[in-house]
Amino acid sequence: MRPIVNIESERTRMNKIAFILLLAAVPTLVSAQHKTLQERLGYTADTKLLIIHADDIGVSYSENSASKEAFKAGLVNSGSVMVPCPWFPEIANYVKSNPRADLGLHLTLTSEWNLYKWGPVAPKEKVPSLVNDKGCFYASVQEVITKGSPKDVETELRAQIERAKQFGVDPTHFDSHMGTLFSSPEFLKVYIALGREYKVPVMLINQITNAYPSAGSLVNENDVIIDRVYIASPDDYKNGMEAFYTKTLQSVAAGVNCLIIHAAYDDNEMKAVTAGFVDYGAAWRQADFNFFTSEACRQLLKDQKIQLITWREIRDKLLRGKG
Amino acid sequence: MRPIVNIESERTRMNKIAFILLLAAVPTLVSAQHKTLQERLGYTADTKLLIIHADDIGVSYSENSASKEAFKAGLVNSGSVMVPCPWFPEIANYVKSNPRADLGLHLTLTSEWNLYKWGPVAPKEKVPSLVNDKGCFYASVQEVITKGSPKDVETELRAQIERAKQFGVDPTHFDSHMGTLFSSPEFLKVYIALGREYKVPVMLINQITNAYPSAGSLVNENDVIIDRVYIASPDDYKNGMEAFYTKTLQSVAAGVNCLIIHAAYDDNEMKAVTAGFVDYGAAWRQADFNFFTSEACRQLLKDQKIQLITWREIRDKLLRGKG
Repeated sequence: MRPIVNIESERTRMNKIAFILLLAAVPTLVSAQHKTLQERLGYTADTKLLIIHADDIGVSYSENSASKEAFKAGLVNSGSVMVPCPWFPEIANYVKSNPRADLGLHLTLTSEWNLYKWGPVAPKEKVPSLVNDKGCFYASVQEVITKGSPKDVETELRAQIERAKQFGVDPTHFDSHMGTLFSSPEFLKVYIALGREYKVPVMLINQITNAYPSAGSLVNENDVIIDRVYIASPDDYKNGMEAFYTKTLQSVAAGVNCLIIHAAYDDNEMKAVTAGFVDYGAAWRQADFNFFTSEACRQLLKDQKIQLITWREIRDKLLRGKG
Repeated sequence: MRPIVNIESERTRMNKIAFILLLAAVPTLVSAQHKTLQERLGYTADTKLLIIHADDIGVSYSENSASKEAFKAGLVNSGSVMVPCPWFPEIANYVKSNPRADLGLHLTLTSEWNLYKWGPVAPKEKVPSLVNDKGCFYASVQEVITKGSPKDVETELRAQIERAKQFGVDPTHFDSHMGTLFSSPEFLKVYIALGREYKVPVMLINQITNAYPSAGSLVNENDVIIDRVYIASPDDYKNGMEAFYTKTLQSVAAGVNCLIIHAAYDDNEMKAVTAGFVDYGAAWRQADFNFFTSEACRQLLKDQKIQLITWREIRDKLLRGKG
């Protein structure tokens, strides 16, 4: 299946991973690195490596509990946490008793739902370009790109990282909620610089780093660039998640791949969080949970000789010299 | 039943309505007002008036949805909203389509649960005495009394009131989450002054206003002081809520009375919010919901000739000249 998907549905008003729209026209470039990423990690060039990654952890209790249950089932092996959200302390507490959990930070600059909102971790006065008149983050990526200053973005992301550390979360990686940080070269520079400073890999693919030719070379040979990111689109959801994920796993190619899912239960809380949305809604997240805790998924991974890898392994081998 | 209850259980570590401890020894004084409150409202002196009041609305989706369902059932006729909490925007949206709902503000200075936290509406830098090292409100009333400055309390309460108005909530009354504002004469002065300024009644009984003789007279004849507040204690919960509420309703005396409950469902979200607590926990709130949506309760109110009254009626008749 498509490694990267044009998923933005006009009806969703969500701009979820809207950056993809921007990138769709950019051809994948071959990495300039002499060794492939999986070779740098000590795997043969034909190894199919996959991170099965749960986004949006911390957004709700439903998301936390389904993500933890999925980790326990053993196939979903990584995830990232939204520090500004109400249920962040609960997942930070989970890390205390699960210190090897592969949890990164889902760096967040948007608050996309209608009646369940959050705002910055940094004082609002210090990041005025990121908040609306109600003190919340903007709902769409487009608004953040238009109004947000790179200085405020850096201030806010630092505040999220430091708060995570204060709560005992040593992130294994960073990525970007709704792809906001991939949607502007200035934001992307901040994101990459913070990854280097904190010695964690940031989720990147060539289509992102090559999207802004005028910005010059944004990465160097020490940076981690994975090969492919897979994610379901609204059309895939309409056609059935089991079919989509089955085809996706059958098509995983050699290299370091990341499959992004959203695990939550289709319960009252999650229905209320996502009220008014179908795409990325509660039923969608339940479908993700169902597939990635299923025996069928386990068998597929085995049949396809897909080997799971974590961001922690990548971080520790390549950026912290524990290889 | 006891109009005011010594409920603080050492095991709960909650300090919920801990101010009651302070007040238990203070005898109820007869109001100096010539007319009783219910007479000022146009009722005969022997009328048994009751507000059945749902606290903590806004704390969670479970609390919001159970409280709304209880309103719909028709016996719970009032409630108050926690502006700093994650589900405040959802209940503010309810007010848009239910503009006559009797909703006040549950002015909040504590964040008492273990893994589900909130902090001030005002910028943290402007209310430093109210936040802990993680930027959240303190968990206990005692900490707020010890560390909080009246100036910061006023700043924060104003921010909560203004935010409520910004979201379209015109509060019918104010009260105090966990009784924090009743636990210090300086906080109490701020609370009473804000009620006068915004022309809303603040929940007060003589035991509160007379608790600090050295502070002088805190109220005047235009202030609203209701006659009794009823609330279940941990012992009442252990002995069964139905028995407690039945006896309470049988004992309601003439005057303006308020019965405080907490309506939520005993579901996954609410269990997680209140994890580690029995008192005021999810099952407690489900028991409150069950009783106050029951036919038995409806019949009792009828049998006891109890007449329901709202804070809106009190506000509009006595403070906004719509009598």
